[in-house]
Amino acid sequence: MNQTVPGGQRLYLGIDGGGSKCRVVLTDANLKILGEGLAGPANPLRGMDVATQSILNASYQALEMAGLSCDDFSRLHVGAGLAGVNVPYYYQLFQKWQHPFAALYLTSDLHAACFGAHQGQDGAVIICGTGSCGLAAVAEQVLEVGGHGFPHGDNGSGAWFGLQLLQTVLRSKDGLTAATLMTELLQQQTGLQDTLALALHFMSASATDYARLAPLVFQAAEQQDELAQQIIVAGADHINAIAARLMTLKPPAISLIGGLCDKLKPYLAPAVQALLVDASQTPELGAIWYAKSCENAKFSGDIKVKGAV
Amino acid sequence: MNQTVPGGQRLYLGIDGGGSKCRVVLTDANLKILGEGLAGPANPLRGMDVATQSILNASYQALEMAGLSCDDFSRLHVGAGLAGVNVPYYYQLFQKWQHPFAALYLTSDLHAACFGAHQGQDGAVIICGTGSCGLAAVAEQVLEVGGHGFPHGDNGSGAWFGLQLLQTVLRSKDGLTAATLMTELLQQQTGLQDTLALALHFMSASATDYARLAPLVFQAAEQQDELAQQIIVAGADHINAIAARLMTLKPPAISLIGGLCDKLKPYLAPAVQALLVDASQTPELGAIWYAKSCENAKFSGDIKVKGAV
Repeated sequence: MNQTVPGGQRLYLGIDGGGSKCRVVLTDANLKILGEGLAGPANPLRGMDVATQSILNASYQALEMAGLSCDDFSRLHVGAGLAGVNVPYYYQLFQKWQHPFAALYLTSDLHAACFGAHQGQDGAVIICGTGSCGLAAVAEQVLEVGGHGFPHGDNGSGAWFGLQLLQTVLRSKDGLTAATLMTELLQQQTGLQDTLALALHFMSASATDYARLAPLVFQAAEQQDELAQQIIVAGADHINAIAARLMTLKPPAISLIGGLCDKLKPYLAPAVQALLVDASQTPELGAIWYAKSCENAKFSGDIKVKGAV
Repeated sequence: MNQTVPGGQRLYLGIDGGGSKCRVVLTDANLKILGEGLAGPANPLRGMDVATQSILNASYQALEMAGLSCDDFSRLHVGAGLAGVNVPYYYQLFQKWQHPFAALYLTSDLHAACFGAHQGQDGAVIICGTGSCGLAAVAEQVLEVGGHGFPHGDNGSGAWFGLQLLQTVLRSKDGLTAATLMTELLQQQTGLQDTLALALHFMSASATDYARLAPLVFQAAEQQDELAQQIIVAGADHINAIAARLMTLKPPAISLIGGLCDKLKPYLAPAVQALLVDASQTPELGAIWYAKSCENAKFSGDIKVKGAV
């Protein structure tokens, strides 16, 4: 993609910024990809210095890939979908950022994912990876549900599944519930046999640590383990509840995004399954769709946050 | 209690050491209380220096109250029920401790609580405070179940109830479940109305933070809130499961200990309720009963851990 970009052409940059990494894509006005970049976390909850530096690093990579330089930052019309900017305090911090771009249109990562999945058209997305949440954008209405963090939110997410598995295994090993295949699978994955050792191992486990256990629930369920099947039904109910709430806006389609999608799909309600479509484009391309929609709506100013915020 | 203790008399010290404080009682051979002491955490998971210093501080207070001095440490026959010593690593650290006592008999805090509740006789205890766990000691058999830490264990505990409440309120505010009185109660207690603010407030909440919310579940249930009643039924089921497991050893009585006992009692199974008795003595007195039982069994050596460890 190392190429010369005509000087007068309008350039777009789309940013998908999460808690662990920041992914950007550089395109021309027709969404032809000119460059890409990847850097560290761009979630302002990790600190504004880290977040803005990640954004600039990833953006510079994309410019370089396109044969451009730092001087071209000022040509970039940027859409950014960032985790954490739905918190007013962090949104305000971003408003104050003296960014080097031509324009910066800011929204949540979830909203950008929805723009990408449906190419800026009406629709909904449900994320089911380490965390879980959903957003529907229909006409001028935007509805965001779920999320809220682990363990108090993110029901039906990978972290949630992993926690249910560990809780069930510990109860099973104590003789407080039936035997389960999940015990053997957890012992294999961790290399720990002893109840106490397992409990200690997860004493300060993160959502990511728990999410690594989620596939074991599905593995056990495939082998007809009843307790695993019960966990999946309960998890799918959480995702069904998110879908049912989003469907009150009557989105024409729903995209499932995240590592657990394929495994969960068969367990979702028929009415939800009937609306499922694959995401058409990535969240970072969605952020560009978002920037373009803001331009089309002739918003004034250089930072716009719409809907979910 | 400032009094002179005859020089030749055998002295007993009982220690109940937990994660936040260490409580000791000094008695004569007939369990007549001569002094008491209170100090910081004596759980070795907080560090051996802190744990041993807490024990020595509290012990010195008790000696002083009895009109004794540091010189009398060597007269003390000590029973210690300490959280964390069921972890072999920490047990071994305590074995290496060059303590100043005549003898030190070590067991878990739960085991000491059981000795106290039933004055050294056969019986069982179920703790339901910030955490939850149970132990039965019948003849030479000791069975310990539950515990394991929060959020992966301690089902039916105060922390567990608080987490269920917050999860339910967040889902209710998102329209993912029915309205509940718990929302108003949580908003009153925290002073926070907004879903996002509530989610952020509990982002790094501890088991203790969650346990503070537990009474709100019972308050809502008393006002016929269905979701609160469902949480209580599920929580009581966890405690019933612990009780049912302990009852396989046929303990003649079970004592419920901890802040949630009175609230939970009416929801427990009739077979469990039929065995409930009030704890006869404190865990620190239980630790002395434990020391005396070790002496009677003529264990050799100066540190003995029995049963639960």
